[in-house]
Amino acid sequence: MNWESNVRKVVPYVPGEQPKAKDIIKLNTNENPYPPAPGVEALLKNYSTALLRKYPDPTCSSLVEAISEKYNVKPSQVFVGVGSDDVLAMAFLTFFNSGKKILFPDITYSFYDVWASLFKIPYEQIPLDDEFMIDPDDYAIPNGGVVIANPNAPTGVFEGLDGIRKILDANRDVVCIVDEAYVDFGAESALSLLDEYDNLLIIQTFSKSRSMAGLRIGFAIGSETMIKYLSDVKYSFNSYTMNSLTLELGAEAVRDDAYFKETCAKIVKTREQLKVKLKELGFEFPDSKTNFIFAKHATVHAEYIFTELKKRNIFVRYWNKPRINEYLRISVGTDEECDKLVTNLKEIIAGRENND
Amino acid sequence: MNWESNVRKVVPYVPGEQPKAKDIIKLNTNENPYPPAPGVEALLKNYSTALLRKYPDPTCSSLVEAISEKYNVKPSQVFVGVGSDDVLAMAFLTFFNSGKKILFPDITYSFYDVWASLFKIPYEQIPLDDEFMIDPDDYAIPNGGVVIANPNAPTGVFEGLDGIRKILDANRDVVCIVDEAYVDFGAESALSLLDEYDNLLIIQTFSKSRSMAGLRIGFAIGSETMIKYLSDVKYSFNSYTMNSLTLELGAEAVRDDAYFKETCAKIVKTREQLKVKLKELGFEFPDSKTNFIFAKHATVHAEYIFTELKKRNIFVRYWNKPRINEYLRISVGTDEECDKLVTNLKEIIAGRENND
Repeated sequence: MNWESNVRKVVPYVPGEQPKAKDIIKLNTNENPYPPAPGVEALLKNYSTALLRKYPDPTCSSLVEAISEKYNVKPSQVFVGVGSDDVLAMAFLTFFNSGKKILFPDITYSFYDVWASLFKIPYEQIPLDDEFMIDPDDYAIPNGGVVIANPNAPTGVFEGLDGIRKILDANRDVVCIVDEAYVDFGAESALSLLDEYDNLLIIQTFSKSRSMAGLRIGFAIGSETMIKYLSDVKYSFNSYTMNSLTLELGAEAVRDDAYFKETCAKIVKTREQLKVKLKELGFEFPDSKTNFIFAKHATVHAEYIFTELKKRNIFVRYWNKPRINEYLRISVGTDEECDKLVTNLKEIIAGRENND
Repeated sequence: MNWESNVRKVVPYVPGEQPKAKDIIKLNTNENPYPPAPGVEALLKNYSTALLRKYPDPTCSSLVEAISEKYNVKPSQVFVGVGSDDVLAMAFLTFFNSGKKILFPDITYSFYDVWASLFKIPYEQIPLDDEFMIDPDDYAIPNGGVVIANPNAPTGVFEGLDGIRKILDANRDVVCIVDEAYVDFGAESALSLLDEYDNLLIIQTFSKSRSMAGLRIGFAIGSETMIKYLSDVKYSFNSYTMNSLTLELGAEAVRDDAYFKETCAKIVKTREQLKVKLKELGFEFPDSKTNFIFAKHATVHAEYIFTELKKRNIFVRYWNKPRINEYLRISVGTDEECDKLVTNLKEIIAGRENND
């Protein structure tokens, strides 16, 4: 017997590439093309590094309070973590201990099954329909919890709150997580349902709409009881997950609501223009309410386009997986980046079609 | 049945207070009284916040490489996390899955039993002797893993490498973690044993000797195989635990080895002076090789001193727990802070003894 026999063996989630080269167009990880709010830069320049010798505020009060004000909930209803991945991992660990299968769609954020495997939580993947839509009735079966990304990734599809409500109604006895990583690009948050459903936990992130993927901030909003349980587990894992600097910079980003709305609106506008251009090039896609488009070309295979774009220093995301291997997930960049993308796509598709 | 019945219920670790008031002398959480290396400030001032819109390097290469150079190991032998607590939590989750009890001392870092409970790992606490020393032979029993803080906390006692070697020899079939959070204040690291023992995992932190508790950096060094398993679990939990800024600031702190050695030497000097003064006041303590002293007064009870010091805005740490409830853990501050501490202790003790 060797120590290796006691290792928890896992198949990790694989994030999109983070190429170090410059002069690339990076549309592969749904990053925001605009910088964080201007106040963040000012705050960073004036930060006294001497403060770093001390432990951070374990209650994360500055950031928690900024979020609670923005979303009009109590500070005791807010939990913050190291990106929404950290928050989701903690939530899986805290709430999914029934021994029953948890449910989530077959096509969704591909970290859900990784967390379930890591924590030995049984799970069942419920197929989306051919339009990549959820049927809420599919979730009215015995289960140990439900996780819905809304809007969904990588499809970009938004499930209206009526559907979410049906799922919550059918699952009063388990925690239902609504993962709203992409909600700020024109979708509707389930926050308005919080007062009605004590089984609802909403999770959001600063990585997309607040241009702070590099800073690692995510948060959950739920009932005070639910947040207390989540915090207890967090405090049993790591007393201080959020560093002092991050707490201040994150709070500043939340306070600048005007900048937040302005950049989100710019991305939505670019996305809508990109939809038109992609259609003209022969792409089809479910309607996206996110900062990406999940697109399939009528004649040219996704993997070929993916590879050709990469040769031209344009990175998009491709998965060689059942049901989605004909699709590319294209993040919405600046207008200029999207124009370059379209120009290159036009050449790639024309070249391929001429060869056929 | 309610969703609450499926919650993982835990008793969290309680960190030392982080009072927000100014003008206090904070000797309760073993923070470093000196600021981080000067290059950290310069780097922070010049950091472009626009970079924060992108995800960090998931491999943490800048920080990993700086650590690997400093400690003369391969980058593939280094794992970094959000403070050593994060690294320890991941290590417990990764390596302690045998179903057998893991072993650690009864008096040690009080997070070990919290992690064990969180992950449902059985454990046994092996009593230290009356001088707070480990008997390595106690660890030669069947077990699922061993965790030794060396130097130990809150006692400050250093176990020589001969003892560590005995524990490693008796436990070739399980992972033995040596938690060296305090090793830089005059103790000896088990790094020199790495080539001989593939069951050894060494964990250190930037929170103490590198004055960066607020930034949250810890690291593990072990065999490439062990680090690979640990990384796989981390990538199954959160792809990006370390933010972009932290990676750069941490790497800079490691590169300034002269500053690191200078501040550690200052703290050791202050500690040795404080030992003399505490003895004069009637305190006794095991010899400390850390940045704190675990002291008991001959006549005045620890809880009384703790409370009186707090009234005077001096914070030290006290636990009302069996075997250690007559002790105070006093972090080593600057010379000036320690002088004020001694002056106040003198008054408190004199006042109490006159009252008796």
